Amino acid sequence: MAAMTRRFVHRLRVRYHECDLQGVVFNANYLAYFDIALTEFMRETIGSYQRLREGGLDLLVVEASVRFRSPARFDDELDIAFVPAPLGRSSMVSDLQLLRAGETVAEGRMAHVFVDVEAQTTVEIPDWVREAVEPWTATPTGD
Amino acid sequence: MAAMTRRFVHRLRVRYHECDLQGVVFNANYLAYFDIALTEFMRETIGSYQRLREGGLDLLVVEASVRFRSPARFDDELDIAFVPAPLGRSSMVSDLQLLRAGETVAEGRMAHVFVDVEAQTTVEIPDWVREAVEPWTATPTGD
Amino acid sequence: MAAMTRRFVHRLRVRYHECDLQGVVFNANYLAYFDIALTEFMRETIGSYQRLREGGLDLLVVEASVRFRSPARFDDELDIAFVPAPLGRSSMVSDLQLLRAGETVAEGRMAHVFVDVEAQTTVEIPDWVREAVEPWTATPTGD
Amino acid sequence: MAAMTRRFVHRLRVRYHECDLQGVVFNANYLAYFDIALTEFMRETIGSYQRLREGGLDLLVVEASVRFRSPARFDDELDIAFVPAPLGRSSMVSDLQLLRAGETVAEGRMAHVFVDVEAQTTVEIPDWVREAVEPWTATPTGD
Repeated sequence: MAAMTRRFVHRLRVRYHECDLQGVVFNANYLAYFDIALTEFMRETIGSYQRLREGGLDLLVVEASVRFRSPARFDDELDIAFVPAPLGRSSMVSDLQLLRAGETVAEGRMAHVFVDVEAQTTVEIPDWVREAVEPWTATPTGD
Repeated sequence: MAAMTRRFVHRLRVRYHECDLQGVVFNANYLAYFDIALTEFMRETIGSYQRLREGGLDLLVVEASVRFRSPARFDDELDIAFVPAPLGRSSMVSDLQLLRAGETVAEGRMAHVFVDVEAQTTVEIPDWVREAVEPWTATPTGD
Repeated sequence: MAAMTRRFVHRLRVRYHECDLQGVVFNANYLAYFDIALTEFMRETIGSYQRLREGGLDLLVVEASVRFRSPARFDDELDIAFVPAPLGRSSMVSDLQLLRAGETVAEGRMAHVFVDVEAQTTVEIPDWVREAVEPWTATPTGD
Repeated sequence: MAAMTRRFVHRLRVRYHECDLQGVVFNANYLAYFDIALTEFMRETIGSYQRLREGGLDLLVVEASVRFRSPARFDDELDIAFVPAPLGRSSMVSDLQLLRAGETVAEGRMAHVFVDVEAQTTVEIPDWVREAVEPWTATPTGD
Protein backbone atom coordinates (compact mmCIF):
# COMPACT_ATOMS: atom_id res chain seq x y z
CA MET A 1 0.00 0.00 0.00
CA ALA A 2 1.44 3.35 -1.03
CA ALA A 3 1.84 6.00 1.65
CA MET A 4 -0.21 9.12 1.02
CA THR A 5 1.94 12.12 0.25
CA ARG A 6 0.97 15.70 -0.26
CA ARG A 7 2.40 17.97 -2.93
CA PHE A 8 3.29 21.53 -2.01
CA VAL A 9 2.53 24.20 -4.61
CA HIS A 10 2.95 27.97 -4.30
CA ARG A 11 1.51 30.41 -6.80
CA LEU A 12 3.09 33.75 -7.71
CA ARG A 13 2.75 36.29 -10.46
CA VAL A 14 5.71 37.41 -12.59
CA ARG A 15 6.66 41.00 -11.80
CA TYR A 16 7.53 43.56 -14.45
CA HIS A 17 11.11 44.08 -13.30
CA GLU A 18 11.80 40.34 -13.20
CA CYS A 19 11.73 40.33 -17.01
CA ASP A 20 14.63 41.38 -19.15
CA LEU A 21 15.27 42.76 -22.61
CA GLN A 22 14.26 39.44 -24.16
CA GLY A 23 10.77 39.97 -22.77
CA VAL A 24 11.04 36.94 -20.51
CA VAL A 25 11.90 36.28 -16.87
CA PHE A 26 15.65 36.70 -16.37
CA ASN A 27 17.24 33.32 -15.71
CA ALA A 28 18.59 34.08 -12.23
CA ASN A 29 15.08 34.95 -11.07
CA TYR A 30 14.06 31.30 -11.38
CA LEU A 31 16.35 30.56 -8.45
CA ALA A 32 14.74 33.42 -6.56
CA TYR A 33 11.34 31.85 -7.30
CA PHE A 34 12.64 28.53 -5.98
CA ASP A 35 13.75 30.30 -2.81
CA ILE A 36 10.31 31.86 -2.38
CA ALA A 37 8.76 28.40 -2.70
CA LEU A 38 11.14 27.15 0.01
CA THR A 39 10.04 29.95 2.34
CA GLU A 40 6.40 29.10 1.74
CA PHE A 41 7.10 25.39 2.16
CA MET A 42 8.65 26.12 5.56
CA ARG A 43 5.58 28.17 6.48
CA GLU A 44 3.34 25.25 5.56
CA THR A 45 5.40 22.64 7.38
CA ILE A 46 7.06 24.19 10.43
CA GLY A 47 5.12 27.46 10.74
CA SER A 48 7.75 29.77 9.28
CA TYR A 49 11.35 29.94 8.19
CA GLN A 50 12.06 32.10 11.24
CA ARG A 51 11.19 29.19 13.52
CA LEU A 52 14.39 27.56 12.23
CA ARG A 53 16.35 30.67 13.10
CA GLU A 54 14.76 30.83 16.53
CA GLY A 55 15.96 27.26 17.01
CA GLY A 56 19.52 28.39 16.18
CA LEU A 57 19.39 26.72 12.78
CA ASP A 58 19.61 27.85 9.22
CA LEU A 59 19.46 26.35 5.73
CA LEU A 60 22.38 26.76 3.33
CA VAL A 61 22.10 26.09 -0.38
CA VAL A 62 24.87 23.83 -1.57
CA GLU A 63 23.68 23.14 -5.09
CA ALA A 64 21.07 24.48 -7.48
CA SER A 65 20.14 23.74 -11.07
CA VAL A 66 17.47 24.80 -13.54
CA ARG A 67 16.34 23.54 -16.91
CA PHE A 68 14.46 26.20 -18.84
CA ARG A 69 11.63 24.71 -20.91
CA SER A 70 9.37 27.55 -21.99
CA PRO A 71 9.95 31.21 -21.12
CA ALA A 72 7.82 32.78 -18.40
CA ARG A 73 6.59 36.27 -19.22
CA PHE A 74 5.41 39.40 -17.40
CA ASP A 75 2.15 38.93 -15.52
CA ASP A 76 2.14 35.13 -15.95
CA GLU A 77 0.77 33.26 -12.97
CA LEU A 78 3.18 30.48 -12.11
CA ASP A 79 2.74 27.50 -9.82
CA ILE A 80 5.89 26.28 -8.15
CA ALA A 81 5.78 22.70 -6.96
CA PHE A 82 8.33 21.93 -4.23
CA VAL A 83 8.96 18.24 -3.56
CA PRO A 84 11.74 17.25 -1.14
CA ALA A 85 13.26 13.81 -1.51
CA PRO A 86 13.24 11.65 1.62
CA LEU A 87 15.42 13.61 4.07
CA GLY A 88 19.07 12.82 4.62
CA ARG A 89 20.85 13.15 7.97
CA SER A 90 21.45 16.88 7.59
CA SER A 91 20.51 17.55 3.99
CA MET A 92 17.33 18.17 2.02
CA VAL A 93 17.33 17.75 -1.76
CA SER A 94 14.23 19.16 -3.43
CA ASP A 95 12.80 18.94 -6.91
CA LEU A 96 11.09 22.04 -8.17
CA GLN A 97 8.77 22.54 -11.08
CA LEU A 98 7.46 25.80 -12.49
CA LEU A 99 4.13 25.47 -14.23
CA ARG A 100 1.90 27.90 -16.10
CA ALA A 101 -1.60 26.57 -16.58
CA GLY A 102 -0.25 23.05 -16.33
CA GLU A 103 2.57 23.58 -18.86
CA THR A 104 6.13 23.11 -17.58
CA VAL A 105 8.05 26.38 -17.68
CA ALA A 106 11.14 25.14 -15.86
CA GLU A 107 12.39 22.34 -13.66
CA GLY A 108 15.10 22.44 -11.07
CA ARG A 109 16.72 20.95 -8.04
CA MET A 110 18.10 22.53 -4.89
CA ALA A 111 20.23 20.87 -2.25
CA HIS A 112 20.26 22.42 1.21
CA VAL A 113 22.04 21.52 4.43
CA PHE A 114 20.88 22.35 7.90
CA VAL A 115 23.49 24.26 9.88
CA ASP A 116 23.97 25.42 13.43
CA VAL A 117 24.22 29.21 13.15
CA GLU A 118 26.52 29.61 16.19
CA ALA A 119 28.87 26.75 15.46
CA GLN A 120 28.70 27.22 11.66
CA THR A 121 28.61 23.46 11.23
CA THR A 122 26.11 21.14 9.59
CA VAL A 123 23.70 19.52 12.04
CA GLU A 124 21.36 16.58 12.07
CA ILE A 125 17.87 17.66 11.06
CA PRO A 126 15.97 17.96 14.34
CA ASP A 127 12.96 15.70 14.88
CA TRP A 128 10.41 18.52 14.98
CA VAL A 129 11.51 19.57 11.47
CA ARG A 130 11.76 16.01 10.20
CA GLU A 131 8.25 15.16 11.36
CA ALA A 132 6.79 18.27 9.80
CA VAL A 133 8.51 17.83 6.45
CA GLU A 134 8.19 14.07 5.97
CA PRO A 135 4.52 13.98 4.94
CA TRP A 136 5.53 16.13 1.95
CA THR A 137 8.55 14.19 0.73
CA ALA A 138 8.47 12.26 -2.53
CA THR A 139 7.39 8.68 -2.25
CA PRO A 140 10.49 6.58 -2.75
CA THR A 141 10.11 5.02 -6.15
CA GLY A 142 10.41 1.29 -6.69
CA ASP A 143 9.14 -1.76 -4.94
CA MET B 1 38.61 82.71 -1.39
CA ALA B 2 36.74 79.51 -2.25
CA ALA B 3 37.74 76.33 -0.45
CA MET B 4 38.99 73.60 -2.73
CA THR B 5 36.63 70.65 -2.87
CA ARG B 6 36.95 67.34 -4.61
CA ARG B 7 34.16 65.62 -6.49
CA PHE B 8 33.66 61.89 -6.08
CA VAL B 9 32.69 59.96 -9.21
CA HIS B 10 32.24 56.21 -9.58
CA ARG B 11 31.90 54.50 -12.96
CA LEU B 12 29.85 51.37 -13.59
CA ARG B 13 28.45 49.55 -16.56
CA VAL B 14 24.73 48.76 -16.91
CA ARG B 15 24.13 45.02 -16.59
CA TYR B 16 21.78 43.07 -18.82
CA HIS B 17 19.39 42.08 -16.04
CA GLU B 18 19.12 45.63 -14.74
CA CYS B 19 17.10 46.52 -17.85
CA ASP B 20 13.43 45.79 -18.23
CA LEU B 21 10.90 45.20 -20.97
CA GLN B 22 11.13 48.84 -22.02
CA GLY B 23 14.77 48.25 -22.94
CA VAL B 24 15.99 50.65 -20.27
CA VAL B 25 17.31 50.41 -16.73
CA PHE B 26 14.42 49.61 -14.37
CA ASN B 27 13.69 52.65 -12.20
CA ALA B 28 14.42 51.02 -8.83
CA ASN B 29 17.93 50.14 -10.01
CA TYR B 30 18.86 53.81 -9.99
CA LEU B 31 18.60 53.71 -6.20
CA ALA B 32 20.79 50.61 -6.21
CA TYR B 33 23.33 52.54 -8.31
CA PHE B 34 23.21 55.37 -5.77
CA ASP B 35 23.90 52.86 -3.02
CA ILE B 36 26.90 51.48 -4.91
CA ALA B 37 28.25 55.02 -5.23
CA LEU B 38 27.83 55.45 -1.46
CA THR B 39 29.83 52.27 -0.81
CA GLU B 40 32.60 53.49 -3.10
CA PHE B 41 32.50 56.94 -1.52
CA MET B 42 33.01 55.34 1.89
CA ARG B 43 35.93 53.35 0.51
CA GLU B 44 37.51 56.57 -0.80
CA THR B 45 36.98 58.54 2.40
CA ILE B 46 37.15 56.21 5.40
CA GLY B 47 38.69 53.09 3.84
CA SER B 48 35.54 51.00 3.57
CA TYR B 49 31.92 50.86 4.62
CA GLN B 50 32.85 47.99 6.96
CA ARG B 51 35.02 50.36 9.01
CA LEU B 52 31.76 52.02 10.09
CA ARG B 53 30.37 48.65 11.14
CA GLU B 54 33.58 47.82 13.01
CA GLY B 55 33.07 51.10 14.87
CA GLY B 56 29.58 49.96 15.88
CA LEU B 57 27.94 52.36 13.46
CA ASP B 58 25.73 52.07 10.44
CA LEU B 59 24.06 54.34 7.90
CA LEU B 60 20.29 54.28 7.45
CA VAL B 61 18.55 55.81 4.46
CA VAL B 62 15.74 58.09 5.53
CA GLU B 63 14.85 59.64 2.20
CA ALA B 64 15.63 59.07 -1.45
CA SER B 65 14.49 60.67 -4.68
CA VAL B 66 15.30 60.41 -8.37
CA ARG B 67 14.47 62.47 -11.42
CA PHE B 68 14.79 60.47 -14.61
CA ARG B 69 16.14 62.60 -17.48
CA SER B 70 17.23 60.23 -20.24
CA PRO B 71 16.97 56.45 -20.04
CA ALA B 72 20.12 54.44 -19.39
CA ARG B 73 20.46 51.31 -21.51
CA PHE B 74 22.20 47.94 -21.41
CA ASP B 75 25.98 48.19 -21.58
CA ASP B 76 26.04 51.98 -21.06
CA GLU B 77 28.94 53.21 -18.99
CA LEU B 78 27.60 55.54 -16.34
CA ASP B 79 29.43 57.95 -14.06
CA ILE B 80 27.80 58.51 -10.69
CA ALA B 81 28.81 61.74 -8.98
CA PHE B 82 28.22 61.69 -5.22
CA VAL B 83 28.32 65.07 -3.48
CA PRO B 84 27.40 65.28 0.21
CA ALA B 85 26.16 68.59 1.54
CA PRO B 86 28.03 69.97 4.56
CA LEU B 87 27.40 67.36 7.27
CA GLY B 88 24.71 67.72 9.89
CA ARG B 89 25.05 66.53 13.46
CA SER B 90 24.08 62.94 12.64
CA SER B 91 22.86 63.18 9.07
CA MET B 92 24.39 63.27 5.61
CA VAL B 93 22.35 64.55 2.65
CA SER B 94 23.93 63.77 -0.70
CA ASP B 95 23.23 64.89 -4.24
CA LEU B 96 23.75 62.29 -6.92
CA GLN B 97 24.07 62.64 -10.64
CA LEU B 98 24.16 59.88 -13.23
CA LEU B 99 26.01 60.83 -16.38
CA ARG B 100 26.66 59.06 -19.67
CA ALA B 101 29.43 60.71 -21.66
CA GLY B 102 28.68 63.97 -19.90
CA GLU B 103 24.91 63.82 -20.52
CA THR B 104 22.67 63.75 -17.45
CA VAL B 105 20.78 60.47 -17.22
CA ALA B 106 19.28 61.04 -13.77
CA GLU B 107 19.64 63.16 -10.68
CA GLY B 108 18.80 62.29 -7.14
CA ARG B 109 19.19 62.92 -3.46
CA MET B 110 19.65 60.57 -0.54
CA ALA B 111 19.45 61.44 3.15
CA HIS B 112 21.20 59.12 5.59
CA VAL B 113 21.54 59.14 9.35
CA PHE B 114 24.35 57.61 11.33
CA VAL B 115 23.11 55.13 13.91
CA ASP B 116 24.58 53.15 16.77
CA VAL B 117 23.93 49.52 15.81
CA GLU B 118 23.64 48.27 19.41
CA ALA B 119 21.49 51.07 20.76
CA GLN B 120 19.51 51.47 17.52
CA THR B 121 19.63 55.25 17.97
CA THR B 122 20.99 58.04 15.82
CA VAL B 123 24.44 59.22 16.87
CA GLU B 124 26.60 62.23 16.28
CA ILE B 125 28.90 61.66 13.30
CA PRO B 126 32.26 60.75 14.86
CA ASP B 127 35.23 63.02 14.15
CA TRP B 128 37.19 60.43 12.18
CA VAL B 129 34.30 60.13 9.74
CA ARG B 130 33.64 63.86 9.64
CA GLU B 131 37.25 64.69 8.87
CA ALA B 132 37.43 62.12 6.11
CA VAL B 133 34.19 63.20 4.44
CA GLU B 134 34.45 66.98 4.73
CA PRO B 135 36.96 67.56 1.92
CA TRP B 136 34.35 66.09 -0.43
CA THR B 137 31.29 68.05 0.68
CA ALA B 138 29.70 70.65 -1.54
CA THR B 139 30.99 74.16 -1.08
CA PRO B 140 28.25 76.10 0.69
CA THR B 141 26.80 78.39 -1.90
CA GLY B 142 26.57 82.11 -1.37
CA ASP B 143 28.95 84.87 -0.41
CA MET C 1 -21.04 66.93 -0.61
CA ALA C 2 -17.79 65.00 -1.02
CA ALA C 3 -17.36 62.86 -4.08
CA MET C 4 -16.98 59.19 -3.28
CA THR C 5 -13.54 57.90 -4.10
CA ARG C 6 -12.11 54.44 -3.79
CA ARG C 7 -8.66 53.68 -2.44
CA PHE C 8 -6.54 51.07 -4.16
CA VAL C 9 -4.48 48.82 -1.89
CA HIS C 10 -2.29 45.87 -2.89
CA ARG C 11 -0.88 43.41 -0.38
CA LEU C 12 2.44 41.63 -0.76
CA ARG C 13 4.81 39.72 1.45
CA VAL C 14 8.48 40.68 1.83
CA ARG C 15 10.73 38.09 0.19
CA TYR C 16 13.93 36.80 1.76
CA HIS C 17 16.22 38.14 -0.93
CA GLU C 18 14.67 41.60 -0.81
CA CYS C 19 16.32 42.12 2.58
CA ASP C 20 19.94 43.11 3.01
CA LEU C 21 22.70 42.79 5.59
CA GLN C 22 20.88 45.22 7.87
CA GLY C 23 18.06 42.71 8.14
CA VAL C 24 15.60 45.04 6.46
CA VAL C 25 14.21 45.56 2.96
CA PHE C 26 16.89 47.15 0.77
CA ASN C 27 15.92 50.73 -0.04
CA ALA C 28 15.71 50.31 -3.83
CA ASN C 29 13.16 47.54 -3.40
CA TYR C 30 10.62 50.06 -2.15
CA LEU C 31 10.51 51.51 -5.66
CA ALA C 32 10.05 47.99 -7.00
CA TYR C 33 7.11 47.58 -4.58
CA PHE C 34 5.65 50.85 -5.87
CA ASP C 35 5.96 49.53 -9.41
CA ILE C 36 4.16 46.32 -8.46
CA ALA C 37 1.34 48.41 -6.99
CA LEU C 38 1.13 50.34 -10.25
CA THR C 39 0.79 47.09 -12.22
CA GLU C 40 -1.98 45.93 -9.93
CA PHE C 41 -3.65 49.33 -10.08
CA MET C 42 -3.68 49.08 -13.87
CA ARG C 43 -5.20 45.60 -13.60
CA GLU C 44 -7.95 46.95 -11.36
CA THR C 45 -8.72 49.98 -13.53
CA ILE C 46 -8.07 49.15 -17.18
CA GLY C 47 -7.81 45.35 -17.07
CA SER C 48 -4.05 45.02 -17.28
CA TYR C 49 -0.90 46.98 -17.96
CA GLN C 50 -0.62 45.13 -21.27
CA ARG C 51 -3.83 46.76 -22.48
CA LEU C 52 -1.87 50.02 -22.55
CA ARG C 53 0.84 48.36 -24.64
CA GLU C 54 -1.77 46.90 -26.97
CA GLY C 55 -3.03 50.45 -27.43
CA GLY C 56 0.47 51.53 -28.48
CA LEU C 57 1.03 53.33 -25.18
CA ASP C 58 3.40 53.00 -22.29
CA LEU C 59 4.06 54.67 -18.96
CA LEU C 60 7.45 56.22 -18.21
CA VAL C 61 8.56 57.16 -14.72
CA VAL C 62 9.86 60.70 -14.61
CA GLU C 63 10.24 61.14 -10.86
CA ALA C 64 10.18 58.96 -7.77
CA SER C 65 10.74 59.59 -4.09
CA VAL C 66 10.52 57.63 -0.85
CA ARG C 67 10.57 58.55 2.80
CA PHE C 68 11.53 55.60 4.97
CA ARG C 69 9.63 55.61 8.28
CA SER C 70 10.03 52.19 9.85
CA PRO C 71 12.02 49.33 8.31
CA ALA C 72 10.11 46.49 6.66
CA ARG C 73 11.48 43.04 7.43
CA PHE C 74 11.52 39.56 5.93
CA ASP C 75 8.09 37.93 5.81
CA ASP C 76 6.23 41.13 6.73
CA GLU C 77 2.90 41.53 5.00
CA LEU C 78 2.73 45.02 3.53
CA ASP C 79 -0.21 46.94 2.16
CA ILE C 80 0.63 49.40 -0.59
CA ALA C 81 -1.91 52.16 -1.08
CA PHE C 82 -1.75 53.77 -4.52
CA VAL C 83 -3.59 57.09 -4.88
CA PRO C 84 -3.23 59.05 -8.12
CA ALA C 85 -3.81 62.78 -7.99
CA PRO C 86 -6.40 64.15 -10.45
CA LEU C 87 -4.89 63.33 -13.85
CA GLY C 88 -2.96 65.86 -15.88
CA ARG C 89 -3.03 66.07 -19.66
CA SER C 90 -0.45 63.34 -20.13
CA SER C 91 0.87 62.79 -16.65
CA MET C 92 -0.17 60.85 -13.55
CA VAL C 93 1.31 61.73 -10.16
CA SER C 94 0.61 59.13 -7.51
CA ASP C 95 1.04 59.03 -3.76
CA LEU C 96 2.06 55.72 -2.31
CA GLN C 97 1.99 54.48 1.23
CA LEU C 98 3.45 51.27 2.59
CA LEU C 99 1.68 50.00 5.68
CA ARG C 100 2.25 47.05 8.00
CA ALA C 101 -0.75 46.33 10.19
CA GLY C 102 -1.80 49.95 9.86
CA GLU C 103 1.65 51.38 10.73
CA THR C 104 3.36 53.50 8.06
CA VAL C 105 6.52 51.83 6.83
CA ALA C 106 7.23 54.27 4.00
CA GLU C 107 5.62 56.95 1.89
CA GLY C 108 6.43 57.96 -1.62
CA ARG C 109 5.43 59.61 -4.81
CA MET C 110 5.85 58.62 -8.44
CA ALA C 111 5.27 60.78 -11.50
CA HIS C 112 4.57 59.01 -14.77
CA VAL C 113 3.89 60.25 -18.29
CA PHE C 114 1.95 58.44 -20.93
CA VAL C 115 3.94 57.97 -24.13
CA ASP C 116 3.30 56.76 -27.63
CA VAL C 117 5.64 53.80 -28.04
CA GLU C 118 6.12 54.25 -31.79
CA ALA C 119 6.58 58.00 -31.81
CA GLN C 120 8.43 58.05 -28.47
CA THR C 121 6.55 61.19 -27.51
CA THR C 122 4.25 62.01 -24.62
CA VAL C 123 0.57 61.73 -25.46
CA GLU C 124 -2.70 62.91 -24.00
CA ILE C 125 -4.16 60.30 -21.69
CA PRO C 126 -6.84 58.55 -23.77
CA ASP C 127 -10.43 58.73 -22.55
CA TRP C 128 -10.76 55.00 -21.89
CA VAL C 129 -7.85 55.22 -19.46
CA ARG C 130 -8.99 58.49 -17.93
CA GLU C 131 -12.48 57.17 -17.24
CA ALA C 132 -11.14 54.01 -15.66
CA VAL C 133 -8.65 55.78 -13.42
CA GLU C 134 -10.67 58.80 -12.33
CA PRO C 135 -12.87 57.05 -9.74
CA TRP C 136 -9.65 56.23 -7.87
CA THR C 137 -8.00 59.63 -7.90
CA ALA C 138 -7.60 61.66 -4.72
CA THR C 139 -10.41 64.06 -3.98
CA PRO C 140 -9.05 67.54 -4.62
CA THR C 141 -8.60 69.15 -1.24
CA GLY C 142 -9.67 72.68 -0.54
CA ASP C 143 -12.83 74.79 -0.76
CA MET D 1 51.54 19.10 -28.40
CA ALA D 2 48.81 20.92 -26.51
CA ALA D 3 46.90 23.61 -28.35
CA MET D 4 47.25 27.04 -26.78
CA THR D 5 44.01 28.27 -25.30
CA ARG D 6 43.21 31.46 -23.48
CA ARG D 7 41.15 31.65 -20.34
CA PHE D 8 38.61 34.42 -19.95
CA VAL D 9 38.30 35.95 -16.49
CA HIS D 10 36.13 38.88 -15.42
CA ARG D 11 36.51 40.58 -12.05
CA LEU D 12 33.65 42.18 -10.14
CA ARG D 13 33.01 43.36 -6.62
CA VAL D 14 30.10 42.08 -4.54
CA ARG D 15 27.50 44.81 -4.03
CA TYR D 16 25.79 45.49 -0.72
CA HIS D 17 22.30 44.64 -1.95
CA GLU D 18 23.43 41.36 -3.49
CA CYS D 19 23.87 39.98 0.03
CA ASP D 20 21.04 38.66 2.12
CA LEU D 21 20.15 38.20 5.77
CA GLN D 22 22.74 35.43 6.07
CA GLY D 23 25.42 38.00 5.32
CA VAL D 24 26.38 36.28 2.09
CA VAL D 25 25.60 36.70 -1.60
CA PHE D 26 22.05 35.46 -2.27
CA ASN D 27 22.18 32.24 -4.27
CA ALA D 28 20.30 33.52 -7.34
CA ASN D 29 22.86 36.30 -7.76
CA TYR D 30 25.49 33.73 -8.73
CA LEU D 31 23.54 33.14 -11.94
CA ALA D 32 23.45 36.90 -12.46
CA TYR D 33 27.24 36.95 -12.03
CA PHE D 34 27.53 34.17 -14.61
CA ASP D 35 25.44 36.25 -16.99
CA ILE D 36 27.68 39.27 -16.48
CA ALA D 37 30.69 37.10 -17.31
CA LEU D 38 28.93 35.98 -20.50
CA THR D 39 28.36 39.61 -21.52
CA GLU D 40 32.01 40.42 -20.93
CA PHE D 41 33.09 37.26 -22.75
CA MET D 42 31.07 38.37 -25.77
CA ARG D 43 32.69 41.80 -25.57
CA GLU D 44 36.13 40.17 -25.59
CA THR D 45 35.38 37.79 -28.44
CA ILE D 46 32.89 39.40 -30.85
CA GLY D 47 33.02 43.04 -29.73
CA SER D 48 29.77 43.12 -27.77
CA TYR D 49 26.63 41.15 -27.03
CA GLN D 50 24.72 43.70 -29.12
CA ARG D 51 26.62 42.62 -32.23
CA LEU D 52 24.71 39.35 -31.96
CA ARG D 53 21.43 41.23 -31.79
CA GLU D 54 22.42 43.39 -34.74
CA GLY D 55 22.97 40.14 -36.62
CA GLY D 56 19.40 39.07 -35.79
CA LEU D 57 20.63 36.52 -33.26
CA ASP D 58 20.26 36.01 -29.55
CA LEU D 59 21.43 33.57 -26.89
CA LEU D 60 18.90 31.66 -24.80
CA VAL D 61 19.82 29.87 -21.58
CA VAL D 62 18.56 26.31 -21.60
CA GLU D 63 20.25 25.01 -18.48
CA ALA D 64 22.16 26.42 -15.52
CA SER D 65 23.66 24.93 -12.40
CA VAL D 66 25.76 26.11 -9.47
CA ARG D 67 27.65 24.36 -6.70
CA PHE D 68 28.25 26.67 -3.75
CA ARG D 69 31.64 26.01 -2.13
CA SER D 70 32.39 28.96 0.14
CA PRO D 71 30.09 31.95 0.62
CA ALA D 72 30.96 35.21 -1.09
CA ARG D 73 30.48 38.30 1.07
CA PHE D 74 29.87 42.02 0.68
CA ASP D 75 32.78 43.87 -0.93
CA ASP D 76 34.62 40.68 -1.93
CA GLU D 77 36.42 40.92 -5.23
CA LEU D 78 35.53 37.88 -7.31
CA ASP D 79 37.08 36.55 -10.46
CA ILE D 80 34.72 34.73 -12.79
CA ALA D 81 36.38 32.34 -15.20
CA PHE D 82 34.24 31.54 -18.25
CA VAL D 83 35.34 28.53 -20.29
CA PRO D 84 33.14 27.35 -23.18
CA ALA D 85 33.44 23.74 -24.24
CA PRO D 86 34.15 23.16 -27.93
CA LEU D 87 31.10 24.62 -29.67
CA GLY D 88 28.19 22.51 -30.82
CA ARG D 89 26.18 23.17 -33.95
CA SER D 90 23.94 25.75 -32.30
CA SER D 91 24.79 25.40 -28.63
CA MET D 92 27.48 26.64 -26.27
CA VAL D 93 28.05 24.92 -22.93
CA SER D 94 30.27 26.87 -20.59
CA ASP D 95 31.95 26.06 -17.31
CA LEU D 96 32.13 28.88 -14.82
CA GLN D 97 34.22 29.27 -11.72
CA LEU D 98 33.98 31.98 -9.10
CA LEU D 99 37.23 32.63 -7.29
CA ARG D 100 38.23 34.92 -4.44
CA ALA D 101 41.98 35.32 -4.16
CA GLY D 102 42.42 31.94 -5.83
CA GLU D 103 39.92 30.14 -3.56
CA THR D 104 36.90 28.56 -5.27
CA VAL D 105 33.68 30.25 -4.15
CA ALA D 106 31.38 28.48 -6.59
CA GLU D 107 31.38 26.47 -9.77
CA GLY D 108 28.71 26.24 -12.39
CA ARG D 109 27.68 25.43 -15.89
CA MET D 110 25.43 27.20 -18.34
CA ALA D 111 24.09 25.86 -21.62
CA HIS D 112 22.99 28.38 -24.24
CA VAL D 113 21.55 28.03 -27.71
CA PHE D 114 21.84 30.53 -30.50
CA VAL D 115 18.47 31.56 -31.86
CA ASP D 116 17.16 33.60 -34.75
CA VAL D 117 15.18 36.40 -33.13
CA GLU D 118 12.68 36.79 -35.98
CA ALA D 119 12.03 33.11 -36.60
CA GLN D 120 12.32 32.16 -32.91
CA THR D 121 14.22 29.03 -33.90
CA THR D 122 17.67 27.73 -33.02
CA VAL D 123 20.29 28.47 -35.64
CA GLU D 124 23.72 27.20 -36.52
CA ILE D 125 26.39 29.33 -34.86
CA PRO D 126 27.61 31.68 -37.62
CA ASP D 127 31.25 31.48 -38.64
CA TRP D 128 32.15 34.96 -37.44
CA VAL D 129 31.03 34.00 -33.93
CA ARG D 130 32.60 30.55 -34.09
CA GLU D 131 35.96 31.92 -35.14
CA ALA D 132 35.95 34.53 -32.42
CA VAL D 133 34.97 32.13 -29.65
CA GLU D 134 37.05 29.08 -30.57
CA PRO D 135 40.42 30.33 -29.30
CA TRP D 136 38.82 30.48 -25.85
CA THR D 137 37.19 27.06 -25.72
CA ALA D 138 38.46 24.36 -23.42
CA THR D 139 41.04 22.04 -24.88
CA PRO D 140 39.31 18.71 -25.45
CA THR D 141 40.57 16.38 -22.78
CA GLY D 142 41.86 12.91 -23.56
CA ASP D 143 44.63 11.34 -25.59
